[in-house]
Amino acid sequence: MTTSERLIESTRELLWERGYVGTSPKAILERAGAGQGSMYHHFKGKPDLALAAIRRTAEELRAGAAGVLHGPGTPYERIEAYLTREREVLRGCPIGRLTMDPDVVASEELREPVDETLDWLREQLAGIVEEGKEQGQFGPELDGEAIAATVVATVQGGYVLARASGSPADFDAGVRGLLGLLAPRSAV
Amino acid sequence: MTTSERLIESTRELLWERGYVGTSPKAILERAGAGQGSMYHHFKGKPDLALAAIRRTAEELRAGAAGVLHGPGTPYERIEAYLTREREVLRGCPIGRLTMDPDVVASEELREPVDETLDWLREQLAGIVEEGKEQGQFGPELDGEAIAATVVATVQGGYVLARASGSPADFDAGVRGLLGLLAPRSAV
Repeated sequence: MTTSERLIESTRELLWERGYVGTSPKAILERAGAGQGSMYHHFKGKPDLALAAIRRTAEELRAGAAGVLHGPGTPYERIEAYLTREREVLRGCPIGRLTMDPDVVASEELREPVDETLDWLREQLAGIVEEGKEQGQFGPELDGEAIAATVVATVQGGYVLARASGSPADFDAGVRGLLGLLAPRSAV
Repeated sequence: MTTSERLIESTRELLWERGYVGTSPKAILERAGAGQGSMYHHFKGKPDLALAAIRRTAEELRAGAAGVLHGPGTPYERIEAYLTREREVLRGCPIGRLTMDPDVVASEELREPVDETLDWLREQLAGIVEEGKEQGQFGPELDGEAIAATVVATVQGGYVLARASGSPADFDAGVRGLLGLLAPRSAV
């Protein structure tokens, strides 16, 4: 790995573990095993490096979610697959957690990839709910965009529950509740 | 206000704005207008002061939620009142946001009041769902504890959506989706 790559990967890890506010340039250099000057050689500074790291994490998250959301199955099954796919629940969401970071939220540049990723996710889910309505799997009264927001919120809030208790089962409980409410009428 | 009170109130504000990792003893003293030695005079240190601050915030959150959850209305109306009650959405949840703080999650002592508060909230909500089932407002297939987790997760994740976009409407969308799914059958 090049130094620039090592810096980006170390920043991604630290942002996930400690957030932006909790990640010092010194900690990044130490983890990357890089010298003092190398950050400023490759990047304009911590915000610039963080932006590269966040963008890469966002791309990965999107690719992973797309595989499930646009995979096989009925609309309900694809939403179920998204909600129950394997996650490192106790680590939280590497993108969503950044919204609790005051310096990320205060920076339009750093917030942008976070906002775009969650928006993209909601659009995909809203499309799937609409598909399910057309197929009669979901009731016509359901609001696709609102349900999509609920699905993403349940995942993001599920991380909060699990990290509070230290148990992934609390993430699963929120997902189970939502799936029970979403269950196709024909299956009840 | 006594110095001890000012220290607690300043810490509560800073924890909400910047989290535990992002809050230095220096920033607390500055905001409290207190001298260098006063923190160690009244508290054992930052963790001890943070614990007092988190406990007080947790108490307030509980009292506010109890007013709505145990207020007037049918079970559905009380859940609706909880989901739609006035919130400073863009500030996030002062308790939930602490779960994204690595030093809070790593400390059993600091995590305890966070976990207890979310647990208490889920118990109240689960009881209300069970009440609604007995009254025939909710279907017998609903799992009260799971629905309670979904309700709390939707609120916590709603903050994530709103802070990502900078718009409280994104919190409201998640809540609207969940209320649509929970709507009593007789009302459909």
